[in-house]
Amino acid sequence: MKVINSTPRADGFYMPAEFSPHYGCIMIFPERSDSWQYGGYAARKAFVRVAEAIAKSEKLTVCASSKQYENARRMLPEHIRVVEMSSNDSWARDYAPTFVTNGKGSGAEIRGVNWGFNAWGGLVDGLYFPWDSDDKMARKLCDLYEKDMYDHSDFILEGGSIHVDGEGTCITTEACLLSPGRNPSLTKEEIEENLREYLGVEKIIWLKNGIYGDETNEHVDNICAFVKPSEVVLAWTDDQSDPQYALSQSCFEILSQSTDAKGRPFKIHKLHCPKPVTVTPEECEGLDTMDFNPTRTPGERLAASYVNFYIANKAVVMPFFGDPADEPARRLLGELFPEREIIAVPARDILIGGGNIHCITQQIPIFEE
Amino acid sequence: MKVINSTPRADGFYMPAEFSPHYGCIMIFPERSDSWQYGGYAARKAFVRVAEAIAKSEKLTVCASSKQYENARRMLPEHIRVVEMSSNDSWARDYAPTFVTNGKGSGAEIRGVNWGFNAWGGLVDGLYFPWDSDDKMARKLCDLYEKDMYDHSDFILEGGSIHVDGEGTCITTEACLLSPGRNPSLTKEEIEENLREYLGVEKIIWLKNGIYGDETNEHVDNICAFVKPSEVVLAWTDDQSDPQYALSQSCFEILSQSTDAKGRPFKIHKLHCPKPVTVTPEECEGLDTMDFNPTRTPGERLAASYVNFYIANKAVVMPFFGDPADEPARRLLGELFPEREIIAVPARDILIGGGNIHCITQQIPIFEE
Repeated sequence: MKVINSTPRADGFYMPAEFSPHYGCIMIFPERSDSWQYGGYAARKAFVRVAEAIAKSEKLTVCASSKQYENARRMLPEHIRVVEMSSNDSWARDYAPTFVTNGKGSGAEIRGVNWGFNAWGGLVDGLYFPWDSDDKMARKLCDLYEKDMYDHSDFILEGGSIHVDGEGTCITTEACLLSPGRNPSLTKEEIEENLREYLGVEKIIWLKNGIYGDETNEHVDNICAFVKPSEVVLAWTDDQSDPQYALSQSCFEILSQSTDAKGRPFKIHKLHCPKPVTVTPEECEGLDTMDFNPTRTPGERLAASYVNFYIANKAVVMPFFGDPADEPARRLLGELFPEREIIAVPARDILIGGGNIHCITQQIPIFEE
Repeated sequence: MKVINSTPRADGFYMPAEFSPHYGCIMIFPERSDSWQYGGYAARKAFVRVAEAIAKSEKLTVCASSKQYENARRMLPEHIRVVEMSSNDSWARDYAPTFVTNGKGSGAEIRGVNWGFNAWGGLVDGLYFPWDSDDKMARKLCDLYEKDMYDHSDFILEGGSIHVDGEGTCITTEACLLSPGRNPSLTKEEIEENLREYLGVEKIIWLKNGIYGDETNEHVDNICAFVKPSEVVLAWTDDQSDPQYALSQSCFEILSQSTDAKGRPFKIHKLHCPKPVTVTPEECEGLDTMDFNPTRTPGERLAASYVNFYIANKAVVMPFFGDPADEPARRLLGELFPEREIIAVPARDILIGGGNIHCITQQIPIFEE
């Protein structure tokens, strides 16, 4: 694996959209007992369902710790590859490499971008300590796939905090990228410049916020996602008493008044959220403490959103919450992705860990083998 | 990765000779402080030299623990892949998979064989405890390379205890394969049957012994190796006062009176050993104890032999001991492998760990990618 000192933009590389063809996908097997209730048994089952859904249409590698390797190998079907790799938790979206391509389709070369990772805020408001094993994963994964790597670890970024259309546009949130736990010494313009250079984009759309209570400092991938160029889904509620209402309204207004890198206005599809999902006392009892404090408290609202889906080659893998909004969400995604199967996975056991299906996956664009 | 319940022989698969074309090679980065003197720094340098020599003509993956991953990545050139994988020590020959092929050259399919591993003798006379991480490596490596696996872990075998010509013949030693720490419940005939089924061979040549003092119970790969079908090198000494003399004589006699699977007599090339190599007091001081005992004692003789070389696609990587016999050994191997570069690596720092270059490598035959 070669470490490249230039930038993707300088070399004609860019991050393709998630709906572009994939070589495959990366996931990480869940383990830590302060993230995943009751020792992670239910979370692992949910991850396996996500894995099976993805592996129906693309190659999947699941990273597991030496301790969990055997469980992973036993629980996952044989066509899914399991590799040993240390991590602090299981959020492949946020610390697996962001892969960039030179855009030649199946003849393309791809490379990885290694951003810095500090557990969503480091010593300011990070979610756990330490995060060193997570932070090393992008490098290890580039090595595993024998892909050269742009090392941009001086710049803190999680994969879940950006969405791109593959045609020059990136959407992100101010709540996350301007938070004091990320790159406080950089101005907004400097952060934009980093995104342009390393994602190969021209224009950044800044939403103010994400999903209410989202402990990632409101990653964009939980509130807004491209379904095709100039077309997005936006997590939505019509309930004015819900704190989410103002946040989604604000996003809608910004998107309505924006155009993408090619000057096109956005078509915005409202994807209605489930009713507030809160943690039960029983779930809290099954979570180990962290630094002598509970990691969740009974009644705490989780950042539930249908936008946190993964677009595989022939499927969209979406979360279900056992809510009346489940089926309408599936219907809308079915309309927006008519050529893909919509696979719903009951995802409460993933949500309790603090994210959802998009957060636990990272796509690898197609390349010449 | 699929686990196959038949045997290689039943499926038309067999272990190809080491001198047949390789896809690549597997090594493991050394770490344990009771095997490698002074924290393994010198051993790692020696391993890196071996790795560089091999990677000149084939793809190489080096497995490193999570602790040593960064060192491995820093010390190894960028064209060598480093993957994280736990192990108890660094003997890829003995616990990486034995790969078998269906023999169609570059269009071939290959599969792995997972033998049982018990640290060269288990609770009878094994060399360390525990050995569970080593024992899991074959399975993990088959998964990593996405190769299906014959699981024969009920049968204890190390890769260094067998050599094959790829044309139906296996050479092994009674000292090892009949030792009470391997498969004591099996008769010699039953052990032969296991080799036939899982190596896809017809005939087993049983040498009595290997190199004097070889703590693997005298692996064949330290005393005798195929250089082509019906042609072997044999570790040799003319010094009748050396306990090695009788062992090598015995091997010579057995080989002289044997024919291979195709009925051909053996051409035997004597590869003269270096003068006895013994451990110094200073080296012993740099080795951590094991179970409250020293792992080596000053003056202890090491099992030094030039036969412990690795045949890469375009090179033979051989050990040097700083002995007058170094150059004659290089010359002989040069004559026997006229189309390969002979690359000598000073190997005392590997030998102290208990083996040599062949022991720390495992080839992967060519296959259709």
